[in-house]
Amino acid sequence: MAAPQPKIKLYELALGNGRSASPFVWRIRYALAHKGLAFDSVPLGFREIPGEFAGRFKTVPVIECGDTMMAESWDIAEYLDRAYPDNRPLFSSPAELAMVRLTDQWFMSEVMRKLFRIYILDVHDAAHPSDQPYFRESREKGLRGRTLEDFTADRLTRLPALREALAPLRAHLATFPFLGGAEPNFADYIVLGGFIWAASVATVPPLQADDALRPYLERGFDLYGGLARDPRMRPLY
Amino acid sequence: MAAPQPKIKLYELALGNGRSASPFVWRIRYALAHKGLAFDSVPLGFREIPGEFAGRFKTVPVIECGDTMMAESWDIAEYLDRAYPDNRPLFSSPAELAMVRLTDQWFMSEVMRKLFRIYILDVHDAAHPSDQPYFRESREKGLRGRTLEDFTADRLTRLPALREALAPLRAHLATFPFLGGAEPNFADYIVLGGFIWAASVATVPPLQADDALRPYLERGFDLYGGLARDPRMRPLY
Repeated sequence: MAAPQPKIKLYELALGNGRSASPFVWRIRYALAHKGLAFDSVPLGFREIPGEFAGRFKTVPVIECGDTMMAESWDIAEYLDRAYPDNRPLFSSPAELAMVRLTDQWFMSEVMRKLFRIYILDVHDAAHPSDQPYFRESREKGLRGRTLEDFTADRLTRLPALREALAPLRAHLATFPFLGGAEPNFADYIVLGGFIWAASVATVPPLQADDALRPYLERGFDLYGGLARDPRMRPLY
Repeated sequence: MAAPQPKIKLYELALGNGRSASPFVWRIRYALAHKGLAFDSVPLGFREIPGEFAGRFKTVPVIECGDTMMAESWDIAEYLDRAYPDNRPLFSSPAELAMVRLTDQWFMSEVMRKLFRIYILDVHDAAHPSDQPYFRESREKGLRGRTLEDFTADRLTRLPALREALAPLRAHLATFPFLGGAEPNFADYIVLGGFIWAASVATVPPLQADDALRPYLERGFDLYGGLARDPRMRPLY
């Protein structure tokens, strides 16, 4: 009989209210649920992340599983299929994996970039108060001296382009219940992770009340016993 | 021993120079090569398509295989995997198929729509002279009376947005030789079909000479013994 696998530890980003809110961590939360793997959570604030791993990792998710420790959501996802081959696979074939990678490239460049642009001040405000000065300083450096307030002042004008960028998802979901088809796959977890992150911070809903994506997102939040459900989530529509 | 399968007939759109030029037909040309299936070509002009099938089909590709006759590239692709299960599959799993469908939705709405906008007059000019009045009349109806010339007068200003829309492909192909990963899949045939169509008509190249997509497209045109190679192709870069 094989030795029991050590319990997985998942290092996550926590907001001021304790909510796990990294879109990349949420991919892995869903991936672990998809594979039926339990884990212990280690919540970290923005400031704690760089120090926690003695410089080895600068971002979460990080998973620790016995002697194995790694960052980067894609490396973790591929590792989980290798390390737990008897559990439900995340990827049915190398071709599915490649297609999900392409979907991720599209979603990051066409959707997540727009979401970050709209919600960066809301992330600051939702961070733990002791994280806020660090968050502001590190993010405003990338804005060449503009404040988060100035950078997001016109954010309502950016909502139509965001909604339009989601058109391929709406068209696909007119035919399939999930991006992965009849069953959710890692592409669903990528998209759901993005919207869960938005719902953790948004002070203005990204979508209109009648957006055709709404039933899909609700279906996704219900997966795995309502994994994403949380009274602290803010309205997406 | 099973009876030999009847030879497949592929009804295609032919330009004035005889070149097959529908992006949807090219998907199926690649799909047939992928599965190692020979076919006889039936080239049709724009005007001939509606009449050829006595109203049953209004668009090509149409394939005929014994008693089976069908249109729509996706229906055909799925049929080919069902009808020829011993040949190399187009789709390794339902999840890969769903992901390729999503890629198609993205490519149609974000890339092909822009290509059609830029090249619609070039398509007219490349059509057989006897097809041109029909093509112009049917297409200008959708432009609310604008001429094809007027509609495309500003087309050079639309090239930057087209090139930018291809960013997810470039990012993906920095890691993988094909969209499908190590081997091409139907997503590659969708994208290659779009560019082969553009190369059949383009009087201005859609891409810059140093576009990172160039080696990928050349690799794709070389597939299956240079299936897409044709001296009548016009420069894409």
